[in-house]
Amino acid sequence: MALNRGFLAVLAVLVFLLATALSARGDELRGTGDLGLIIEREAGRVAIVDTTTKELLGKVDGLGDLSHASAVFDRSGRFAYVFGRDGGLTKVDLLERKIANRIVQAGNSIGGAISQDGELVAVSNYEPGGVKVFSSADLELVADIPAAYGDDSTTSKVVGLVDAPGQRFVFSLYDAGEIWIADLEEPSTEPAITRFRQVGENPYDGLITPDGRHYLAGLFGEDGISLLDLWNEEEGPTRILDGYGKGEEPLPVYKMPHLEGWAAAGDFLFLPAVGRHELLVVGRSTFEERGRIELHGQPIFAVARPDGRQIWVNFAHPDNDTIQVIDVPSLSIVKSFKPGKAALHMEFTPRGEAVWISVRDEDRVDVYDTATFKRMATLAIDKPSGIFFTARANRIGL
Amino acid sequence: MALNRGFLAVLAVLVFLLATALSARGDELRGTGDLGLIIEREAGRVAIVDTTTKELLGKVDGLGDLSHASAVFDRSGRFAYVFGRDGGLTKVDLLERKIANRIVQAGNSIGGAISQDGELVAVSNYEPGGVKVFSSADLELVADIPAAYGDDSTTSKVVGLVDAPGQRFVFSLYDAGEIWIADLEEPSTEPAITRFRQVGENPYDGLITPDGRHYLAGLFGEDGISLLDLWNEEEGPTRILDGYGKGEEPLPVYKMPHLEGWAAAGDFLFLPAVGRHELLVVGRSTFEERGRIELHGQPIFAVARPDGRQIWVNFAHPDNDTIQVIDVPSLSIVKSFKPGKAALHMEFTPRGEAVWISVRDEDRVDVYDTATFKRMATLAIDKPSGIFFTARANRIGL
Repeated sequence: MALNRGFLAVLAVLVFLLATALSARGDELRGTGDLGLIIEREAGRVAIVDTTTKELLGKVDGLGDLSHASAVFDRSGRFAYVFGRDGGLTKVDLLERKIANRIVQAGNSIGGAISQDGELVAVSNYEPGGVKVFSSADLELVADIPAAYGDDSTTSKVVGLVDAPGQRFVFSLYDAGEIWIADLEEPSTEPAITRFRQVGENPYDGLITPDGRHYLAGLFGEDGISLLDLWNEEEGPTRILDGYGKGEEPLPVYKMPHLEGWAAAGDFLFLPAVGRHELLVVGRSTFEERGRIELHGQPIFAVARPDGRQIWVNFAHPDNDTIQVIDVPSLSIVKSFKPGKAALHMEFTPRGEAVWISVRDEDRVDVYDTATFKRMATLAIDKPSGIFFTARANRIGL
Repeated sequence: MALNRGFLAVLAVLVFLLATALSARGDELRGTGDLGLIIEREAGRVAIVDTTTKELLGKVDGLGDLSHASAVFDRSGRFAYVFGRDGGLTKVDLLERKIANRIVQAGNSIGGAISQDGELVAVSNYEPGGVKVFSSADLELVADIPAAYGDDSTTSKVVGLVDAPGQRFVFSLYDAGEIWIADLEEPSTEPAITRFRQVGENPYDGLITPDGRHYLAGLFGEDGISLLDLWNEEEGPTRILDGYGKGEEPLPVYKMPHLEGWAAAGDFLFLPAVGRHELLVVGRSTFEERGRIELHGQPIFAVARPDGRQIWVNFAHPDNDTIQVIDVPSLSIVKSFKPGKAALHMEFTPRGEAVWISVRDEDRVDVYDTATFKRMATLAIDKPSGIFFTARANRIGL
């Protein structure tokens, strides 16, 4: 009888394990195309969300210093690579909602990118300067690009790192005033570097257009933008929008507009005017100023709805409780509203029916219908900052 | 002892089930952003592929007549909705690799679309004419739009059905010569229909531009294109490219070019010239002809690499063993090669590093590197036709 009781106990445990295994499988077997990740900056944590049900799925802890953190995704949409400020590079499994791998690869870093084929993750570093490239599978170091300049004894802080078609990464050297293209088509050899010198003083940020053709680096020291046409590399960078960085008064570098706050829609680019209550409208192929739109405050991010019909703009303190929406064909403001204190980040769903807004100082992320401007959902998120949806895996330069 | 043997047997079965459950879970727990579906037309079957490993994962049978079949995806990328020629609408679970649901909703149908929010799947029908709209969750009928015209006693064949921003579907009535917009923003009420009459004789196909702004319907009876600007609906359709359908001699309707064979890249649209060995180059905002590119044969599909740098073109019999690649800035052919007999469909990976090509008469799908033109992989697929990757879930009008 004692033996049978023992068997019964074992049986019960096995049945429980089986039921758990089956139910866990049922819970987790899901598509990843509608997943997203939200940075909880102060907690060093990320929240994982479902953009179909508009619900929080869970949180993953232990990602270090997430000031100015950003994320890219693997081709499958299962894994996010989160770039922390402390040099941490964390691979997060969105399905199992845990850290799959984590390294601290530098002392101070800012942002990164994933290669066209999804196999390489690059990080741009401040301390020490340069770019490190890792295997997306296991975070093993694939290439180290120190970004040495001058007499080659100094390495430059690297900013504005983006992916470009053909296993290339493009980035700017803040201290050196250079733009580099690193080609990693042959990962077994050293990266092939194309180096553009004297592009302008102190490039502080960069972006690549959604087609992967034009790389733009904002210049802190010279009040303009350096433009590199990757379809005509041999011509080298040219200068556009001189005076772009010129506000009412000189700004410290951390107040310069982030170039990822630019929007491309229709024939135009829209960009925050530095230190002014205006959005600049720039021709998409000429890169010349075509007009200005007066706004409620000093803009930070201008983001295009994916169909290009609207531009959503948020603002610097003390106007950071407000969002304004521009109608692209008429270049007029069609909506102004106050989602709450410190509405600092916006992310559209891939086909644009909804936008998610971080309201940092109210510990909320709100979801709005972009056609009716009605709030559709609210999620409790601790001091939310950047919002990143897995559809970015399918885009160039994101 | 007999009792204990019984227990042991039960134990063994439970351990086996547990192991199976755990291993099945391990197999299936994966992202869906890199999945794809290939139509095996003659077998009435679909193949499910992984675009990262470039491997066949499995096949799903029993989808009926898959002539001219196409597919759309739910927001999560887990489910495909396959539109058969026999009126069949099949929901395929790409993770479990089985049919999740299947209905036969008409006698003869062609193509469909999924709404911006992913909740509605619409099918365009020949027999009986009209459009039916289903819940993407359970394939329950949500709306029936008979496409009645004239004295309202006849229903028209419907073609060129696409999704547009704002829960709208746009489609053309072949028999009536009309374009309709159905707005399903309020699914509890009847769809709101905007009806444009006399757009031209016998629209036979349609497309919407990637920004969801311009709807184009090819006219069989009048040798031109009807263009509707959805940002200026009140102006109604206008006529563009008169003579577009005019080849060396009149063509039967099934030989007219499919409009989804158009490509948008940079400032241009590229479209197969009817009955000629040419690709037309048309201004993207003016819709006026800007040039022609001479080709190896009569083009069928012209597809843009996602960065817009290249256009890949395939051809009608007897030249359907050939592919030509156009370089967009120079408008010149940079590559011609012969992947094999009946290279009829092409699908790019979302960031464009690879293209998958159906080689129907050789029962293969080949994967090419778009930078080097080298063949990277080959998959055994039975009479492959259309190839559809889950990244389409994130695009307007696909």
